[in-house]
Amino acid sequence: MSPHDDSAPHAPPIGTLASGPLGTIADVPGVTVGHCTLDQDALQTGVTVIRPHRGDPFIDKVPAAASVINGFGKSIGLVQVDELGTLETPIALTNTFGVAAVAQAQIRSAVRANPQIGREWSTVNPLVFECNDGYLNDIQALAVTEQHFNDAFDNAGTEVASGAVGAGRGMSCFDLKGGIGNASRAVEVAGRGYTLGALVLANFGRLPMLTIDGMPLGRLLAERARMAQASAEAATAKATATKPEQGSIIMIVATDAPLDARQLKRLSLRAAAGLARTGSVYGHGSGDIALAFSTAYTVPHAADFIALPPLVADARLDPLFRACADSVEQAIVDALWSAVSVTGRDGHRRLSLRDSVPDLAQLLKSTR
Amino acid sequence: MSPHDDSAPHAPPIGTLASGPLGTIADVPGVTVGHCTLDQDALQTGVTVIRPHRGDPFIDKVPAAASVINGFGKSIGLVQVDELGTLETPIALTNTFGVAAVAQAQIRSAVRANPQIGREWSTVNPLVFECNDGYLNDIQALAVTEQHFNDAFDNAGTEVASGAVGAGRGMSCFDLKGGIGNASRAVEVAGRGYTLGALVLANFGRLPMLTIDGMPLGRLLAERARMAQASAEAATAKATATKPEQGSIIMIVATDAPLDARQLKRLSLRAAAGLARTGSVYGHGSGDIALAFSTAYTVPHAADFIALPPLVADARLDPLFRACADSVEQAIVDALWSAVSVTGRDGHRRLSLRDSVPDLAQLLKSTR
Amino acid sequence: MSPHDDSAPHAPPIGTLASGPLGTIADVPGVTVGHCTLDQDALQTGVTVIRPHRGDPFIDKVPAAASVINGFGKSIGLVQVDELGTLETPIALTNTFGVAAVAQAQIRSAVRANPQIGREWSTVNPLVFECNDGYLNDIQALAVTEQHFNDAFDNAGTEVASGAVGAGRGMSCFDLKGGIGNASRAVEVAGRGYTLGALVLANFGRLPMLTIDGMPLGRLLAERARMAQASAEAATAKATATKPEQGSIIMIVATDAPLDARQLKRLSLRAAAGLARTGSVYGHGSGDIALAFSTAYTVPHAADFIALPPLVADARLDPLFRACADSVEQAIVDALWSAVSVTGRDGHRRLSLRDSVPDLAQLLKSTR
Amino acid sequence: MSPHDDSAPHAPPIGTLASGPLGTIADVPGVTVGHCTLDQDALQTGVTVIRPHRGDPFIDKVPAAASVINGFGKSIGLVQVDELGTLETPIALTNTFGVAAVAQAQIRSAVRANPQIGREWSTVNPLVFECNDGYLNDIQALAVTEQHFNDAFDNAGTEVASGAVGAGRGMSCFDLKGGIGNASRAVEVAGRGYTLGALVLANFGRLPMLTIDGMPLGRLLAERARMAQASAEAATAKATATKPEQGSIIMIVATDAPLDARQLKRLSLRAAAGLARTGSVYGHGSGDIALAFSTAYTVPHAADFIALPPLVADARLDPLFRACADSVEQAIVDALWSAVSVTGRDGHRRLSLRDSVPDLAQLLKSTR
Repeated sequence: MSPHDDSAPHAPPIGTLASGPLGTIADVPGVTVGHCTLDQDALQTGVTVIRPHRGDPFIDKVPAAASVINGFGKSIGLVQVDELGTLETPIALTNTFGVAAVAQAQIRSAVRANPQIGREWSTVNPLVFECNDGYLNDIQALAVTEQHFNDAFDNAGTEVASGAVGAGRGMSCFDLKGGIGNASRAVEVAGRGYTLGALVLANFGRLPMLTIDGMPLGRLLAERARMAQASAEAATAKATATKPEQGSIIMIVATDAPLDARQLKRLSLRAAAGLARTGSVYGHGSGDIALAFSTAYTVPHAADFIALPPLVADARLDPLFRACADSVEQAIVDALWSAVSVTGRDGHRRLSLRDSVPDLAQLLKSTR
Repeated sequence: MSPHDDSAPHAPPIGTLASGPLGTIADVPGVTVGHCTLDQDALQTGVTVIRPHRGDPFIDKVPAAASVINGFGKSIGLVQVDELGTLETPIALTNTFGVAAVAQAQIRSAVRANPQIGREWSTVNPLVFECNDGYLNDIQALAVTEQHFNDAFDNAGTEVASGAVGAGRGMSCFDLKGGIGNASRAVEVAGRGYTLGALVLANFGRLPMLTIDGMPLGRLLAERARMAQASAEAATAKATATKPEQGSIIMIVATDAPLDARQLKRLSLRAAAGLARTGSVYGHGSGDIALAFSTAYTVPHAADFIALPPLVADARLDPLFRACADSVEQAIVDALWSAVSVTGRDGHRRLSLRDSVPDLAQLLKSTR
Repeated sequence: MSPHDDSAPHAPPIGTLASGPLGTIADVPGVTVGHCTLDQDALQTGVTVIRPHRGDPFIDKVPAAASVINGFGKSIGLVQVDELGTLETPIALTNTFGVAAVAQAQIRSAVRANPQIGREWSTVNPLVFECNDGYLNDIQALAVTEQHFNDAFDNAGTEVASGAVGAGRGMSCFDLKGGIGNASRAVEVAGRGYTLGALVLANFGRLPMLTIDGMPLGRLLAERARMAQASAEAATAKATATKPEQGSIIMIVATDAPLDARQLKRLSLRAAAGLARTGSVYGHGSGDIALAFSTAYTVPHAADFIALPPLVADARLDPLFRACADSVEQAIVDALWSAVSVTGRDGHRRLSLRDSVPDLAQLLKSTR
Repeated sequence: MSPHDDSAPHAPPIGTLASGPLGTIADVPGVTVGHCTLDQDALQTGVTVIRPHRGDPFIDKVPAAASVINGFGKSIGLVQVDELGTLETPIALTNTFGVAAVAQAQIRSAVRANPQIGREWSTVNPLVFECNDGYLNDIQALAVTEQHFNDAFDNAGTEVASGAVGAGRGMSCFDLKGGIGNASRAVEVAGRGYTLGALVLANFGRLPMLTIDGMPLGRLLAERARMAQASAEAATAKATATKPEQGSIIMIVATDAPLDARQLKRLSLRAAAGLARTGSVYGHGSGDIALAFSTAYTVPHAADFIALPPLVADARLDPLFRACADSVEQAIVDALWSAVSVTGRDGHRRLSLRDSVPDLAQLLKSTR
């Protein structure tokens, strides 16, 4: 969660599970995140890198699985994650047309670390997700370069900013400014404590759908906008609201609970529940993808047999399922709360939720 | 929707799309539903049959597809639906241990109508879904017989009861009485009007999760129950609430919009959004399955080529996606609103929502 | 492998891996198989049961996964296997219209052993596969009963008959007599020895496709039949050969190698390679399903955490993949070699390969 | 098929269906193929582009679907193909580390043609497949550039070379020189004539597995090599043969038969049958992916409804299934027959099948 102006209303807490201390995906021990943000006139974009552990994920692969909730998306790397149940590079997020440059950077970075790759060893599977930030960002400029990935990688740490940063710089959400959001939950599974964290790249939705903790805020705001009809920004918002979604959301879920790839696939699908509670119906044009990984063990690149810790029994997964849905919903709320207003290409402007709704605190109080 | 006591509070309307005239799956022209209800002491169960059209679905197959949201379920027939994109029997719902008898009845019924089946022609693929009604119903009695399917089939019509009827007789939902729920929505797609209807067999959830149109009613009721601690029923509810889900929900979605099987699969997944908005996170032990079919055309059993009407372009699907999510959420609400309290095996009793919350109308008003 | 007449030509060995001592799925320690065969005039059918271990699979579930190669099939149980990666009943095979009776028997058997099922515990997922034996068997008679499952279960042992027995009694394969086939292979994985066994229910294919160890025997026989044109049987074969497949093959693969469900899914798909080498192109009307399970560990019904043995690394799976393809091909050959000629309903008759091709030994020698 | 030296033995014809006039994927009307080949010392690689029609596939999308037979692969674009059932760029093939550059080129090419992409319109989904040519090619040099894609695109025509060309330049197959292979078949479906063509990028297999039209040639050659033990090349072949596969095969299947995406997915899986008949068991490290598309109609980018021609009934698909398996097998044989011997990085050399087996014609005759 990015540091808020203290006068601003706090984001409502979702559900009844406790948050971790940081309230970010970095509450899961070992997970670090780095951003590289491009903020130059029409270039409003960036790269975000999630490192599942501090080592080399090619050597010590990470159990992982994804759910493609709506596959209008151009990610790279999921075919192999699906087959092998592991990831072997950091997870990178960027804009739709930045995937190639970032994948190239992932390859070069892996080969630098392991010169055997593509020679004595097999090749490496770069994992890159994307959303389309073309409303604010001049996506046709193909501005993301390999260096931006490297910078984001080098920036990785446990202090994780949310909002209009990294890959989130140019993203829109419910016709408002979207971007990176974070959340975490502490869960108890069969007497043991675990942490689950989520980081989202939120770039989906039309305003009338926006729902905050069950409250149909978007319908209210759309109504208000209809009555005002005044500001150019509201008009813009209205105009775009009639267009179909061209958004997407990427939801990365981390946990230190010992799960295998099959269980992580089950877990990742629960992101769809958190997403739905914010008003999404997984629109046709929205690439909605969730990936879950576990930090409880790694899968060595070179080994004959893989020793695993005892895995959580499937019948004990419900607390983690709940934590996943709640964290994803909370992370989307966090993205809306953390993002600042941004002006980008051709004078396009996305207001932050708080700039758009100055009386947000009152509004939320009145309905609850 | 079953006829309500006029003094009872109406179920809140979900979303902004208009309902069809009946507010049931039968608003989709040609679709009929029949129930057969067993209500004899410990036997509280039944069969519900959905006929996609009034003809023989083996001869005129129906485009269909399913999404298995959580596969803790024992349905029969989905392997072939997934491969061929059609269904060729009515859709039957029953309790988990009734699947075999109902499948047998489907086979016999199809063979009666088409004696070539299993001889000159290929075999028939019975389609039967189930939920576990073992809390109220003596499921071990295997009380459902082929005749019950036949009776439900013969009862099929456009007047569709909701609540503790048919397969819904013994079902529980959020520790309250669940069962059959219905809803429909009128949608406009590219200037043309279509109808989407949903019928659910709702048997999932723990009380604290219950959310009605965004309002966390379950949390409120759980809090109230905790404070009361008095009635045996509340104690029972509390005891069961600590147990994992052994429920399930089957969500059948019909539309007259011309969609092919791939599009129907996309549509069926949007049931997961409606389900999530009621509080579900697709619990481990809950078999959550959605099936969508289109009545816009049929696929003849014997044909060399299949002529289709022009199909809705994928980029125009969003209104149908919204209608699916809203109808499923509304249908779950309808199940809770329509069901009466039921006592079953070993004195187990499930209170209806309205019996459980006498001040429901006030409660809903106060929070909205 | 069933005991052969010593004068009959031996089935050619497939591939270069060594067979296990029995040459059946029972070479995998703990696996037992039982048949119940119906052979009464028009009733030529049966049930085959594979027990993955000698205990109760509901209490000690077995890691398993399936590949649906072509989903023209009516099996029950795969939805849950896919979600949870375990099976919890014996694997049963029967004819298409016997699935319901056998599923019912599985449920009753599980409830007898564990009266908590459907009460305090969740329900049980019966696993039943099928092929359509309607050419020889009066499938419309629905002759398979629960007792037949129980008898097959009680017959389970390590002496496993192949051919026209159990579920294989009425099956056809390449317009010849098909049925049950078995094979096994010894494999070395990273210095350790494992066994993989396969049992198939072979009921697919048209004669001209038949390929034995790469040799296009079917084309030869079809050519010969065309030239002869004499016998009624050849005429029948020709007539049916012009009809599309209404067959199927079920391929059950067992191994004592420690694999998880994701790996077993990978393994099961390699059955498609063995199947293809016999001439199949996974015809439209053929339900081609492979299920693989591991006996290296079990997953207890009641446990908070699941301890696993070290798993074979994915990069070491190739010997098992090869063993799977070879065993499935060998098991299909075994079915053809073991089956006797059978006469069934309406005088329909399927000749065994050896009855059909008296000079089989010479033929095979001449081309190799 | 590339023009052969007349003295060389012809590749054996696979199956009984007739080939199209060209014997390449370009027998499907409208399909064109272009290669760009890099042949400079250690750089032995390239790009191959398949254009499904001569128009702009973003404006007139092409019905398509893929089967991931073994997902050890790094392709880009399949997530969206799976969701929407269409492709909207040409199909590009290259080496594993060239995917990013080629995807970038696809994006730039689409934006050039349609400047609305990523602005008023949604983004574009580049479709790029790959195999690892790291044995012959210095894959770490990342030598493939956007220009190479453009050149291959500009070269597209109906004269399609096979062998060590385009993306096939550096590929190995069964420890021999692999690369691009082509084949086609004429089929009759319900009285109408259709064409199915296949283009493969063959880079899989160890020598002992090689099977040509059912004949275990690889076993013979491996045996011969073992006895010779002389040449360095044989030793190399042997050394690499003990290493696991790091190969892959991409199989592109085109047809003018009217099929929808669901049917094309079924069709694409039959490539697995053709692949298996050459000896593959879909090795762990081999990314085996098949994509099928139909040229019978297109799906306009901007449309409310999609009018389709009458589709082939599923029950009539078998001839196309057979044509797919046969064409893929034939195309693999064609790759082996067409490829010339190539020397690449670090003096690595792959002999062509004919250079490796001077008496190939005799050998094939002797066993048939």
